[in-house]
Amino acid sequence: MNPIDPALIKQIVEEICKRLEACNDDIPVGVSNRHIHISREDLDILYGPGYALTKLNDLKQPGQYSAKETVKIIGPKGEFDKVRILGPVRNETQLELALTDGFKLGINLEIRESGKLQGTAGIIIEGPKGSVKKGYGAIAALRHIHMPPEFAQRQGIKDKDFVDVVCEGIRKTIFSNVLVRVSDQFVLEMHVDTDEANASGLKNGDTVKIIKNRE
Amino acid sequence: MNPIDPALIKQIVEEICKRLEACNDDIPVGVSNRHIHISREDLDILYGPGYALTKLNDLKQPGQYSAKETVKIIGPKGEFDKVRILGPVRNETQLELALTDGFKLGINLEIRESGKLQGTAGIIIEGPKGSVKKGYGAIAALRHIHMPPEFAQRQGIKDKDFVDVVCEGIRKTIFSNVLVRVSDQFVLEMHVDTDEANASGLKNGDTVKIIKNRE
Repeated sequence: MNPIDPALIKQIVEEICKRLEACNDDIPVGVSNRHIHISREDLDILYGPGYALTKLNDLKQPGQYSAKETVKIIGPKGEFDKVRILGPVRNETQLELALTDGFKLGINLEIRESGKLQGTAGIIIEGPKGSVKKGYGAIAALRHIHMPPEFAQRQGIKDKDFVDVVCEGIRKTIFSNVLVRVSDQFVLEMHVDTDEANASGLKNGDTVKIIKNRE
Repeated sequence: MNPIDPALIKQIVEEICKRLEACNDDIPVGVSNRHIHISREDLDILYGPGYALTKLNDLKQPGQYSAKETVKIIGPKGEFDKVRILGPVRNETQLELALTDGFKLGINLEIRESGKLQGTAGIIIEGPKGSVKKGYGAIAALRHIHMPPEFAQRQGIKDKDFVDVVCEGIRKTIFSNVLVRVSDQFVLEMHVDTDEANASGLKNGDTVKIIKNRE
């Protein structure tokens, strides 16, 4: 009997691992602390004309990063001193808070998809060079999954579907109405806010599974 | 044809309403803000020997009340100024916080059933007359339902069972591992903390339903 070529064994193992990985439906979780996306116009006022954000850390979604810069957020009943700006600048300023934060500030947050800001709560933002009073733009983000097309196809899911997601543990929870956004610009990741993470015991890097698709 | 006696109609309507009520499986929700149950010994130190708590409001569970008195809670990274004492005094001091609160204080909270305090996080408590450094006693409460025996019997549930509970809405959530405590001293009520309430959009007085029993 001829001995098996070790290089061939390695090749087989790697191919099997690749296939297993392709079938793996674990979805990593990213817990969003309160943060703000800022418009060019507002950044000019808060940090001075033409100010460029300084990258602190890359986020998991390509091109997105946390900036060294923070702002102060002021509500009728409370404030937060150092709310992190996420870059790059966007078309509209959008403040993402947990409902817990909203109660502390004294504002009534709606659960909204990113970018759907009409009729949302207003807020005062203070930077080192100036302050802005926004008539709207503060939301509690609708929980959602960033999903690459290959994963969506394997799961039979399409962009803007809603799915149910289960996380195990002592605070085992099934989250319904989880929005799926599919794009080849996305890395697989479910975003929840700190309330949702704490209610279910989820931490950054934990994984969840989709248990059912809804149209 | 004889006219029907209005008193009889009223009696029939009342009987039907009673039966419908008996079949109603909606469970009212009580959202627990951070609070503290205090021992006689600790109250003596914090508010002075023999101090009697002053009732502010009756809670829904018979005999339980919120007191006018509050304490300051101090952790390694933060503090809360006015944490409400719930009366009457208990055998052991027990501080109930949301995990969000724990992060602010800088303490690592375990999810625990009320009274199961061994090995839990310590905390410093300050009152107007003195302060206490507890080696343990701070928990995130395991979500649970206070249930009278008639309701439990109708649902086929017994004391210390765990059930799954669904709450509807834009943040529709199924909470698993919900502990049931059955006693004729209890009024039907599910207790969740502020993280759980905010993650699912629940407010005081909202209702949830049991969807499955587990042994």
